[in-house]
Amino acid sequence: MIPVEEARARILDVLVPTGAETVPLAEAWGRILAAPVPARLTQPPADVSAMDGYALRAADGAPGAGLTVIGSAPAGHPFAGSIGPCQAVRIFTGGLLPDGADAILLQEDATAEGDRVTVNEAVQPARWIRRRGLDFTAGDTLLEAGRKLTARDVGLAAAGNHPWLSVHRRPRIAILATGDEIVLPGEPLPPGGIVSSNAHALSALVRAAGAEPMVLPIAGDSEDAIAQAAAAARGADLLVTTGGASVGEHDLVQQALGPQGFALDFWKIAMRPGKPLIWGRLGQTPLLGLPGNPVSALVCGVLFLCPAIARLAGLPPAPLPFQPAVLGADLPANDRREDYLRASVQRDAGGRLVVTPAPRQDSSMLRILAGSDALLKRAPLAAALPAGSLVEVLLLQDFGV
Amino acid sequence: MIPVEEARARILDVLVPTGAETVPLAEAWGRILAAPVPARLTQPPADVSAMDGYALRAADGAPGAGLTVIGSAPAGHPFAGSIGPCQAVRIFTGGLLPDGADAILLQEDATAEGDRVTVNEAVQPARWIRRRGLDFTAGDTLLEAGRKLTARDVGLAAAGNHPWLSVHRRPRIAILATGDEIVLPGEPLPPGGIVSSNAHALSALVRAAGAEPMVLPIAGDSEDAIAQAAAAARGADLLVTTGGASVGEHDLVQQALGPQGFALDFWKIAMRPGKPLIWGRLGQTPLLGLPGNPVSALVCGVLFLCPAIARLAGLPPAPLPFQPAVLGADLPANDRREDYLRASVQRDAGGRLVVTPAPRQDSSMLRILAGSDALLKRAPLAAALPAGSLVEVLLLQDFGV
Repeated sequence: MIPVEEARARILDVLVPTGAETVPLAEAWGRILAAPVPARLTQPPADVSAMDGYALRAADGAPGAGLTVIGSAPAGHPFAGSIGPCQAVRIFTGGLLPDGADAILLQEDATAEGDRVTVNEAVQPARWIRRRGLDFTAGDTLLEAGRKLTARDVGLAAAGNHPWLSVHRRPRIAILATGDEIVLPGEPLPPGGIVSSNAHALSALVRAAGAEPMVLPIAGDSEDAIAQAAAAARGADLLVTTGGASVGEHDLVQQALGPQGFALDFWKIAMRPGKPLIWGRLGQTPLLGLPGNPVSALVCGVLFLCPAIARLAGLPPAPLPFQPAVLGADLPANDRREDYLRASVQRDAGGRLVVTPAPRQDSSMLRILAGSDALLKRAPLAAALPAGSLVEVLLLQDFGV
Repeated sequence: MIPVEEARARILDVLVPTGAETVPLAEAWGRILAAPVPARLTQPPADVSAMDGYALRAADGAPGAGLTVIGSAPAGHPFAGSIGPCQAVRIFTGGLLPDGADAILLQEDATAEGDRVTVNEAVQPARWIRRRGLDFTAGDTLLEAGRKLTARDVGLAAAGNHPWLSVHRRPRIAILATGDEIVLPGEPLPPGGIVSSNAHALSALVRAAGAEPMVLPIAGDSEDAIAQAAAAARGADLLVTTGGASVGEHDLVQQALGPQGFALDFWKIAMRPGKPLIWGRLGQTPLLGLPGNPVSALVCGVLFLCPAIARLAGLPPAPLPFQPAVLGADLPANDRREDYLRASVQRDAGGRLVVTPAPRQDSSMLRILAGSDALLKRAPLAAALPAGSLVEVLLLQDFGV
């Protein structure tokens, strides 16, 4: 049994990001940039007004002064001429500052009549003018490679004049559920049969992590069935198996895949839930074997599959997003396996997380996991802890899971 | 100018959730349930073993006892007979407990030889047996209507034997950018032109909020163009406009849409960035008019459009997810408009958020917004605050924005 951290490191160590593909800006939200995005223009392209009002020479902006309005400069319609002494141009937010102007008279500080305008409040030079390049200058790097694009980033890339972006291809994750006892939801259920839930939960987890799931047909507990199903996964970036525990899952998967070129790295980790975790390679395809119990499969999915997908997807290396939390109940001492307790969290008045483990932690109880907010980490051999102690949690919503 | 909270309440007040549609379980992640999901079966369907080992009568499980192994019960292959005195059945995780058995001898506590097994550690009645219905019982409500489905929920619905789910139709949000000065990214850019960023950022925000964006062609600053473009939005659940500020945006939108049946509710809110915010109805279609400045458009998107989409999408009413945070720098007093400062956040060792506003808050500076983590709320007329004070923030990642 190897430690959890070492297992994760060995998984991440051999994975490489997918290549780049070109996507339209409108499809880029949530994708991972494969190349930096430079500004292709300067924004604003010239000095512009930040308000509606009048462009003028600051020297002409004393209270009581009267000016002749010689034209207008709405956004998108620059004024072609130049402003001279005692002249003004009607201007609107985003309008280019006309030649000769160096100040803005706010419309609420002015009285207009025909082509004349009277200054009611003294103008300040440069006030209400947005200088050329205030937001960015052509050539600036607006967004770095490896960034997961937010809605704001999409807006910024648009403003930088990019109709297309280069992003990492979504990793393709094949999911193979094994087990004589499982059937697809809605299919006829034989005696002793169980409806397959892991493949569908993991498929959703794969989507949440930004990858493309490919759910393979269920393979029964025979070497032939497993070998045949796994062959379908050779084009995937990662093959995830789950289940087969009824006949000693590691043995069966290894026995079935050995002749197909399976090379094992490790298959037991010091963790609860989820001791049996397979990591290896089927030909060119990395293979992650998850336990068959639904809770074990999903918890191992969060701890190993999500980071694996992040690596494949081109995100920069990052530790798991553990957060400190205050324990809401006493905890007993832990044994030698790192434990991940299903727990609910609340925030206290000061914004601190308070975490309370679910009273039952059986790894078959999917309903308790679905109703939980967090996984509470217990180190191997951790001592008993009283309520109020500080512990570490992973919030499931941080994984979209 | 009406207060922010009142504006949001007036928006939410008139919106109703979309109807239900049937989607395959495999497409249900992230969708909002329109009907509760009942368990269609009991899980586990009968008492099962939680471990690999031997099923036996607890009375036969004393150390040193020898038993005859009369069959096996892997998951999916129930043992057809019954266990009598001094008999055992080989059993595996998930295997149905055979008739007559009431205990499990772990395989690591047993010595097997041919069809004989010897007990090395005393068995405990009921230990390692998962009782029928441990996870759920047929008829239990597994998931409530209004729930946004996580990966775990998808697994639970699968386990409850649902191949299809009833979810709210994704709201269709039409997005109309107006302005003579704006052009699509990559299109020829005239003098004084600006590349359109709002529609694309808002489209991504709409996706992040779980709705379907429909980006309408840009409308120039004329009543005809706006009226024509808006007509294309009549099938949408909500029409969002942005921009047109160069010629007095509220006036232009209202002037253009009045003859089309536009009924205004309000168009100015006491907020920065984003004073001009239109709310009304174009025929049957609710209309939200956002400011043209990119930062104003996105901040108003978070504060008004995201909650509007949540309501349309069928999520239960919920306040905005404000979190307490410790101020990382002094703040000046605020004026009468509620202010949302762009800010970065970090966590201190105790897990508390520490928030520091960006040094420049101009509403045209999209790059600063893209680089921010949070919006720091300042109440109208709030007094100056020293660093270390407690303030409220919205984390932009909580909106997927």
